[in-house]
Amino acid sequence: MHTSSLFPAAILTLLMGAFYFFTAVRVGVLRGRHNVKAPATSGHPLFERAYRVQLNTLEQLGIILPFLWVAALYPIDAQWLAPLIGIVWLIGRVLYLRLYMADPEKRLLGAGIGGLTNLAMLVVALCGVLKAWFAGRA
Amino acid sequence: MHTSSLFPAAILTLLMGAFYFFTAVRVGVLRGRHNVKAPATSGHPLFERAYRVQLNTLEQLGIILPFLWVAALYPIDAQWLAPLIGIVWLIGRVLYLRLYMADPEKRLLGAGIGGLTNLAMLVVALCGVLKAWFAGRA
Amino acid sequence: MHTSSLFPAAILTLLMGAFYFFTAVRVGVLRGRHNVKAPATSGHPLFERAYRVQLNTLEQLGIILPFLWVAALYPIDAQWLAPLIGIVWLIGRVLYLRLYMADPEKRLLGAGIGGLTNLAMLVVALCGVLKAWFAGRA
Repeated sequence: MHTSSLFPAAILTLLMGAFYFFTAVRVGVLRGRHNVKAPATSGHPLFERAYRVQLNTLEQLGIILPFLWVAALYPIDAQWLAPLIGIVWLIGRVLYLRLYMADPEKRLLGAGIGGLTNLAMLVVALCGVLKAWFAGRA
Repeated sequence: MHTSSLFPAAILTLLMGAFYFFTAVRVGVLRGRHNVKAPATSGHPLFERAYRVQLNTLEQLGIILPFLWVAALYPIDAQWLAPLIGIVWLIGRVLYLRLYMADPEKRLLGAGIGGLTNLAMLVVALCGVLKAWFAGRA
Repeated sequence: MHTSSLFPAAILTLLMGAFYFFTAVRVGVLRGRHNVKAPATSGHPLFERAYRVQLNTLEQLGIILPFLWVAALYPIDAQWLAPLIGIVWLIGRVLYLRLYMADPEKRLLGAGIGGLTNLAMLVVALCGVLKAWFAGRA
């Protein structure tokens, strides 16, 4: 196992988790500000947008994080590629947040970056797994 | 640590993640096709079903993936059991998707396989952890 | 890599996952009891509360689990701190469940413990990563 490739994955995990934590705190703040009583998850447009941003970020984390760690455990030669994809994913998430809060219809650039980086991370992780398999390190 | 038991977990993680990614893309497609404007998550029966399938798959991933990796880090003697349970989980998810889209009331077989495989993976992971504990490898 | 610090993280992961599994099963039971037909996620106050508790627990798992494992991979000297924070998180979740079911407005203590433990786990994981970096183990 290449433990050196785990380190960038660990850093990215903290960044992604911190960003997601921020989206969750925002939802709590907007719930209070716009007086949306639990367990409701609708009632004010800004709250609803923030809630969808949070939940969508969780939905995306459920894809990118497992792929990132498989790629870290079974790295390809270009070890920098998986962390780079993770950084682009994170930038896409910040864009998604800002675009969605301004106007949900304008979120597509942020959503597209999310989809493409998920797919790219899957390909990188798959290549790493195949490489380990053919190298007999499985 | 038995790194050989990590490999099947890595492959399964990619398969599970790819399936979940597929359910998420489907939601995006159906959102467009049936013109359900964000941030709404209701408005057309097929969209609502697809969205529940995606979210339920994420809910299930949050159980099975951590258990799978604990089982991989602390394998029991029958190392093939955890990956096998993971494959059955995945088959259950495909069933769940197909049954739920046809008629939400018919989803129970898929949901049942999910619940049972989650429970089985928990037991396997717990046995592995206990085995490591008694072997002094904790 | 300090594999000994992985063991408490594995145990905690099983406990957290088992608790979350329990919240999910509860939702299924209440869906049946109060006859809330899928794909609806509203229709009866107790079902709605139980569903929010489950989803909120998943939302929180998406923060605490990645941080816990980064902290386990890159432990600080006080290795007991991350598992302790995890246990407090779990106690907070049980409180959240009980308070929320009784009255959603009373959930704040449980929610607060969740937020604070997430933040504490992030700080501990970050310290571990920085320590590994300065020790040249990155």
